Amino acid sequence: MRIVVTGAAGFIATNLLERLLAEGHEVHGIDNFFLGKREYVARSLEKPGFTFHEFDLLDRDRLVALFQRLRPELVWHLAANSDISYGTSYTDFDLKGGTLVTYNLLEAMRVSSTKKLIFSSSGAIYGEPTILPTPENYGPLFPISFYAASKIACETLITAFAASYQMKCWIFRFGNIVGGYPTHGVIHDFVLKLQRDPTRLEILGDGTQSKPYVHVEDCLDGMMFGHATAADLVNCYNLAVSDWTSVNQIAEWTIEAMGLDPAKVAVSRTGGSRGWPGDVPKVRLDTSRMTALGWTPKMGSNEAVRRAIQETVAQFV
Amino acid sequence: MRIVVTGAAGFIATNLLERLLAEGHEVHGIDNFFLGKREYVARSLEKPGFTFHEFDLLDRDRLVALFQRLRPELVWHLAANSDISYGTSYTDFDLKGGTLVTYNLLEAMRVSSTKKLIFSSSGAIYGEPTILPTPENYGPLFPISFYAASKIACETLITAFAASYQMKCWIFRFGNIVGGYPTHGVIHDFVLKLQRDPTRLEILGDGTQSKPYVHVEDCLDGMMFGHATAADLVNCYNLAVSDWTSVNQIAEWTIEAMGLDPAKVAVSRTGGSRGWPGDVPKVRLDTSRMTALGWTPKMGSNEAVRRAIQETVAQFV
Repeated sequence: MRIVVTGAAGFIATNLLERLLAEGHEVHGIDNFFLGKREYVARSLEKPGFTFHEFDLLDRDRLVALFQRLRPELVWHLAANSDISYGTSYTDFDLKGGTLVTYNLLEAMRVSSTKKLIFSSSGAIYGEPTILPTPENYGPLFPISFYAASKIACETLITAFAASYQMKCWIFRFGNIVGGYPTHGVIHDFVLKLQRDPTRLEILGDGTQSKPYVHVEDCLDGMMFGHATAADLVNCYNLAVSDWTSVNQIAEWTIEAMGLDPAKVAVSRTGGSRGWPGDVPKVRLDTSRMTALGWTPKMGSNEAVRRAIQETVAQFV
Repeated sequence: MRIVVTGAAGFIATNLLERLLAEGHEVHGIDNFFLGKREYVARSLEKPGFTFHEFDLLDRDRLVALFQRLRPELVWHLAANSDISYGTSYTDFDLKGGTLVTYNLLEAMRVSSTKKLIFSSSGAIYGEPTILPTPENYGPLFPISFYAASKIACETLITAFAASYQMKCWIFRFGNIVGGYPTHGVIHDFVLKLQRDPTRLEILGDGTQSKPYVHVEDCLDGMMFGHATAADLVNCYNLAVSDWTSVNQIAEWTIEAMGLDPAKVAVSRTGGSRGWPGDVPKVRLDTSRMTALGWTPKMGSNEAVRRAIQETVAQFV
């Protein structure tokens, strides 16, 4: 199958490409290396079937021209500002890198008659919900971050295009995804901080934030299962685990995995319940729809975190 | 109070300005005359306290400069592509005229420390809901039009700005608003068609579409009451009536109000359940939250429609 993957130099795509290329697909990746890494693309380019296109998805003309030439069957739209804290410095960061980019992609799909889209949304769209664990039909959606606002805007653009042009879409609202080839996130952050200075570790917030961590291998399993199984025009699922891990716990395990003596690492906390403005301190996602569809993750939150720490340490240290 | 009104030459603003100026406020109106009418602005300019600024809200620099100079206390954000069918010709019409414009406005509010916003959202955001009448906490939001997708994107930008910069917002999800000084809509459409050719009337769709029609006087009463009474950071209410009127009924009453013999008007229908792609044929909005807040509309749907037909005929014929 001819497939386009956006955000192809990023964390999830690097793991995805390994699978798609092993399955023998013709895969075209797009990235602008804002968050993605050149060494991850180099890895993917070692395998046959992969073509890389370096440009910014805000360049609609180039995107449309590529889609008209390729006429792909399926798009994995993984490009995003996945580092939520960026969006707190520039209020239009997620509007451009999320909403406008997604519009451009949908428009390129429309003019090239591309009819299938898999999209990585986020549990952050629920804001600070009054119902935990939060189901997919939770409302009203009053997000507290520009990142989440943009993810909702993307979802609604997707459903409007789906209804208008009979495009089929699979929207997955992620918990926190962790694993090999990271570009950002709490584990990546802790490992790099401790590598730079093994005597101290600063935790953003008070460390009691707790979220469902999903290993990227489970995440890909779930998306592929959902894509193969759910057949509505709009298919939308929380993709998470039913348990969770605290940031303080992640810090402890990372210090241990780095081979450091916990007594000799001065842990400090910036304080407050949030890691950054718009951070949702307590996330619980209702996963019963994915379960009813026939899929459950192999790893719980703690196991996903411990394995991701090992993978990150092995890669960076 | 110093107030900014966007979409100041439009239908709802023209009715609003009469009230705000009668109350003695200093009001600054902005419009680009895309849908708004110069003669409506001329009406507003007859009263003291009104200043008009003609420019496109996509011009962020000009908008920010104006807000920095004025530092208003309150914004009524009524600018939008209120003619939903436009959005079916250009897929980025509502993205620009809704989402990007609203981002620009919120950014202008942020840099000028403007802290209060009243926003006209729409019941169209619920898409084709499985729950009728539809409550504010309905989910998931899978809109079928670009107009509705943009209204949701605006709402989420507003709540993200509200949470990030402590702006207070009042979001009203409208039924179909009708009344004097229209610029678009089914009544305006029928009156102008019959004026052009009193022997025929084309109805978009099969005419059985039925929606709750709210008179603009009730709509303004409701928004003003909500603004004065609801005091959360994010205040969101359906603003509608509990009954509804069909498009066929509106056609019949318009023919009658034009003084035409129904037997001599050839009524045709374009067919299908929708008036245009993305039209939601059956809308029912749950108004119990507004009722609980202490407000109910004075006119039911049929009365609102009949009065709006009279007002439109008196104005245009």
